Amino acid sequence: MEEKTDLTETIQKLEKIYSGSYMDVEKQFLRLPDGREAVREIVHVRNAVAVLPILSSGDVVLVRQYRPAIQKTILEIPAGLLDDGEDEESAAKRECEEETGYRPKKLQRLLHYAHAEGYSTGWITLFVATDFEQTGQISLDNTEHLEPVQMSFTELQNLVLQNEIVDSKTILSAILAEKWLGL
Amino acid sequence: MEEKTDLTETIQKLEKIYSGSYMDVEKQFLRLPDGREAVREIVHVRNAVAVLPILSSGDVVLVRQYRPAIQKTILEIPAGLLDDGEDEESAAKRECEEETGYRPKKLQRLLHYAHAEGYSTGWITLFVATDFEQTGQISLDNTEHLEPVQMSFTELQNLVLQNEIVDSKTILSAILAEKWLGL
Repeated sequence: MEEKTDLTETIQKLEKIYSGSYMDVEKQFLRLPDGREAVREIVHVRNAVAVLPILSSGDVVLVRQYRPAIQKTILEIPAGLLDDGEDEESAAKRECEEETGYRPKKLQRLLHYAHAEGYSTGWITLFVATDFEQTGQISLDNTEHLEPVQMSFTELQNLVLQNEIVDSKTILSAILAEKWLGL
Repeated sequence: MEEKTDLTETIQKLEKIYSGSYMDVEKQFLRLPDGREAVREIVHVRNAVAVLPILSSGDVVLVRQYRPAIQKTILEIPAGLLDDGEDEESAAKRECEEETGYRPKKLQRLLHYAHAEGYSTGWITLFVATDFEQTGQISLDNTEHLEPVQMSFTELQNLVLQNEIVDSKTILSAILAEKWLGL
């Protein structure tokens, strides 16, 4: 790699635009390394975890969920936001159980990524889960409405190949589980 | 797959929270299919394109850029928002040229995905570019500050494997170009 220039932008001023239940929005007035000034609008959200549950049969468990932001019902892996002070593994186990009724005993960390690096503070950590206690304890948030869908891993891979899976966490976990874990 | 329940949520009321230069934010008051009500905060952003440029030598061209939202300088593929009325291919060629100086003559579409389906309207379309006119016409927006970095495709794949690449578009394009195009 070439010599690394310092590209860091420095915050001159912050302006709070909105403080909501899911997100805060702020305007950052920045100074660029070359002295120019810029304004960026930044969304603050909690970090999230997402889990691809692979049962001993080889089947995976996804959830169907309506996503108002994109006005679509999509098929995706179980996921959710970290609670206050909660570590990622605990959150991953909790979310997987709450949305599918399967509580993972074993998690493998796949990836940690920024899902909207241009304007959001949010990171997602992806796991593959194997070895479950089937508690059947599906427990959704007050306003959550989703349903679990079980299918073969091959079927999921075909849906990814056809671009019928449209969210980054599900596409990435399916592809990386195959590529890195040989699943 | 199981029988498909209608999970669509219906908008009862919209409240505009913020109208900015990069994003608009609104609050949606929704009715869930089971009659409950919910409020969602939604960020409206333009759709984007991103391009993995692979030169005839096999090298790829990325850009180093500071991302204030995650407070990091990251290495990522060239990308940008669609201009008004612009089609995705034109935007991909334009962004690639503006950020790297290489204007693609050939694009292959890899994927169309929602990058933050939980709260953002934004979709990204990923392309692999090959066969270039090297115009050297790097032309950044007023407040853009980035530098091109050329490396071998193997080096990029290693950075992905080590999770040193942290944005979804770069990880996805590197992995899918290898998996689907055999690159």
